[in-house]
Amino acid sequence: MTAANREPVTILGLGPMGQALAGAFLNNGHPTTMWNRTESKADALVTEGAHRSETVVDAVAASDLVIACVIDYDAVQAIVEPAATALKGKTLVNLTADSPARAREMADWAAEHGIEYLDGAIMTPAPTIGGSAAVVLYAGSQALYEIHEPTLSNLGGTAAHLGTDPGRAAAHDVSLLDMFWTGMAGMVHGFALAKAEGIEAVDLAPYAKGIVNLLPDIMSDFAERIDEDRFTGDISNIRSAAAGMDHIIHAAHNRDIETGVLNAATALAKRATESGYGAESFARLSQVLRDA
Amino acid sequence: MTAANREPVTILGLGPMGQALAGAFLNNGHPTTMWNRTESKADALVTEGAHRSETVVDAVAASDLVIACVIDYDAVQAIVEPAATALKGKTLVNLTADSPARAREMADWAAEHGIEYLDGAIMTPAPTIGGSAAVVLYAGSQALYEIHEPTLSNLGGTAAHLGTDPGRAAAHDVSLLDMFWTGMAGMVHGFALAKAEGIEAVDLAPYAKGIVNLLPDIMSDFAERIDEDRFTGDISNIRSAAAGMDHIIHAAHNRDIETGVLNAATALAKRATESGYGAESFARLSQVLRDA
Repeated sequence: MTAANREPVTILGLGPMGQALAGAFLNNGHPTTMWNRTESKADALVTEGAHRSETVVDAVAASDLVIACVIDYDAVQAIVEPAATALKGKTLVNLTADSPARAREMADWAAEHGIEYLDGAIMTPAPTIGGSAAVVLYAGSQALYEIHEPTLSNLGGTAAHLGTDPGRAAAHDVSLLDMFWTGMAGMVHGFALAKAEGIEAVDLAPYAKGIVNLLPDIMSDFAERIDEDRFTGDISNIRSAAAGMDHIIHAAHNRDIETGVLNAATALAKRATESGYGAESFARLSQVLRDA
Repeated sequence: MTAANREPVTILGLGPMGQALAGAFLNNGHPTTMWNRTESKADALVTEGAHRSETVVDAVAASDLVIACVIDYDAVQAIVEPAATALKGKTLVNLTADSPARAREMADWAAEHGIEYLDGAIMTPAPTIGGSAAVVLYAGSQALYEIHEPTLSNLGGTAAHLGTDPGRAAAHDVSLLDMFWTGMAGMVHGFALAKAEGIEAVDLAPYAKGIVNLLPDIMSDFAERIDEDRFTGDISNIRSAAAGMDHIIHAAHNRDIETGVLNAATALAKRATESGYGAESFARLSQVLRDA
């Protein structure tokens, strides 16, 4: 296929992720049009052959497939609303990260304006885009996804259409980032405690990786327990987890390190224990959080 | 080597971990003596050839190597203090989990009573003991560790002597469990949010594993940054992390899920931003936690 056969793509937003998206389409021969509030950001891509539009309306006019990737949905709305007429009959793929509720609102807005809409979530950092490690999730019309799938596949790695609920990709996104950022908070806190105890972070890191490598198997076990509402018979129970977290909190306070994150986790475990779940799997907390 | 050549071992405490320790020594031909507050716990091991003592003093008399593994150091102290005379000149290896400060106190107590002392931390669950996945960390006298290393190696997997500070194994333990339990708290919260959005946990799990698999590389990068106090130039900065966490909190509140853990993590990120670190690596939070 020559460049002339490839579907033209317009990218709105040229932060690190928007630039990575534009680069991936450009590298695969797609006529690529870009618009960004700050024009200078697009210079390198223009040199490589991308077209830069002065206005959103011009950028939208250049392609039937328009991809938005900006800071949040307020920013998307501010960009696309004045261009609603230009977008009519075209496909807007919104790869901006925000909440599931906002994704559904955006889908409703698009439908009201006769704009085809897919919502997506990019789960891996900008440098992965175009390579095998990229993970991009989509939600909305299955038929619409299939039409543009050959083009979208140029973003690389794993692409998945998760369902017709336009909030479903964003729901995956927030749930996964919940695990990610909480894990990151634990990582910096564990390193802080180790440093305060005279342990270099690079000396702790190999053991820390061993701890992280325990999580995938626990995830598989917990996922089944949660879906089946089956929380008995786990070797590690909520009460012993709370006792373990108390040791960590005590050790951190000995070194004048605050423990807000662990305090909140321990409070949840103690609430569950007071509700009679102390001898059950830590996975029970997932249900306690929902039914509180 | 026949059983007669193997170093006799006494185990104090027969919870799931104590039983796993006793089983590993027994399977490797070590004369194994056990004591526990609740006698019935040792029945299966007695059938396999372990000796059960009625009193701590009798159990200690049977071996020059005595291993304690109970709920916490208060429990260890309550068990070994009345047996201090019997322990004199012997080696006490304390594999009970508690704080670094308590480990150092216990080492001081042992020294005052002429008891050789090693402090240890078991980093993997009871079923791993004796197999390749086990990880047991030791701290205290290097010479003492080397004397008993052939026996202790029967616990399997990775054994490491971390240094002469008797609190060093416990310091690794609390730092690593800090990362572990915070990660676990994130896991159950992420699953709760996904379920509230209609996503089955087993459908989220494969993506969740992908997220967890990003952490080891980040750990390596963060460890170097933390040791070198070098927090500039990270692609993901504290301000954008705080914005991301706000999206998750917003999405959770939309589903009436409490966000205590993320609130605390976000508050830390916002404090760091107010201190002028907003454009720096998330790894900076490790230093902010220590110097608060």
